[in-house]
Amino acid sequence: MRRGLFISFEGGEGCGKSTQASRLKSSIESAGYKVILTREPGGTWLGEQVRRLIKDQSDDIPCARAETLLFLAARAQLVEKVIRPALEEGVWVISDRFSDSTLAYQGYGRGLDLEELAKANDFACSSLKPDITFLLDVELEESVNRRLEREKKLNSSADRIELEGKEFHSRLREGFKELAAKEPARFTVIDANASIDEVQERIWTRLKPLV
Amino acid sequence: MRRGLFISFEGGEGCGKSTQASRLKSSIESAGYKVILTREPGGTWLGEQVRRLIKDQSDDIPCARAETLLFLAARAQLVEKVIRPALEEGVWVISDRFSDSTLAYQGYGRGLDLEELAKANDFACSSLKPDITFLLDVELEESVNRRLEREKKLNSSADRIELEGKEFHSRLREGFKELAAKEPARFTVIDANASIDEVQERIWTRLKPLV
Repeated sequence: MRRGLFISFEGGEGCGKSTQASRLKSSIESAGYKVILTREPGGTWLGEQVRRLIKDQSDDIPCARAETLLFLAARAQLVEKVIRPALEEGVWVISDRFSDSTLAYQGYGRGLDLEELAKANDFACSSLKPDITFLLDVELEESVNRRLEREKKLNSSADRIELEGKEFHSRLREGFKELAAKEPARFTVIDANASIDEVQERIWTRLKPLV
Repeated sequence: MRRGLFISFEGGEGCGKSTQASRLKSSIESAGYKVILTREPGGTWLGEQVRRLIKDQSDDIPCARAETLLFLAARAQLVEKVIRPALEEGVWVISDRFSDSTLAYQGYGRGLDLEELAKANDFACSSLKPDITFLLDVELEESVNRRLEREKKLNSSADRIELEGKEFHSRLREGFKELAAKEPARFTVIDANASIDEVQERIWTRLKPLV
């Protein structure tokens, strides 16, 4: 059986990853493929518990290394229990964030060593890599506006990581771009300041030859 | 200020680590030093949450890599928030388990690659190592008896890791011994089949010249 394709979406807060991941799922299904959508750091019961620990505004905020390792624990479980079995059965997998988020957030964002991070990440996912990664790149101002809109709509509030300052998010954005530049075959960078429909079309243009 | 000494206790289930760690704390205090006792994977709020996730007999049991990374997350937080600040203030630290447990349990026990584990562990504790490690070595039969006695006394039940089979615990014991053989300067192996008082005396014999 042909192995499924593994696609990840990456980008900062409010870049539209979740919306696009879910639209892409529908398009791929319409093309006749089985596909599942996972999100990090959730996607398994263990991952959801970890998500809660990371996002929590508790008194015992995880230090940068603990935060990284919690994300990696959730990823290890997701890879072992969900992603790898699906791919092996020929199912496509779309992940809302994957390894590049670790390098961007904890490396470029929090300043941990990129090489050490890459090794710890390889350990977590036994070296599984996405076949295709869409980086949705959006201006910082636009991303903040989108987040505030969403919070208003859902009556929710920003989590600990979303609340990081402008400099953090700026380093993050540059970090993602550097990662994309290093692996042009895997990455497709999409200007996500455009409308949702336009972004969706650009993503489909990249993927259409493969279905 | 002179840096505090960092001491860890290692060994399989029922080897008497917790009892000896707590007795050693008293002896060091009597010698006039400040000392704190930490336990893995607890010791911080985050660590206690992680402990719950690991020991839980839930439907979503962590895979070997996720289990490892959860332990490492707890360790990272403990090192950053508790152990390193204490040592820098001249306080001694006794830890009930540390890095060697990862190598023994997840490496020798669960079969993960020792070198990869050592690297992930170095990332977690930014290469902090104990100055002295006591390995309490006990016959498997004796360790099971002690565990059952304790459960009876506390009316508790064994956790997921304690319930692993005889072969697992046997690999673990051999693993600990191999680790000790690789670093004879750091490790002191103690025959812990002896009485609590005898074991305590042997530990103190090693430590006395340093106080």
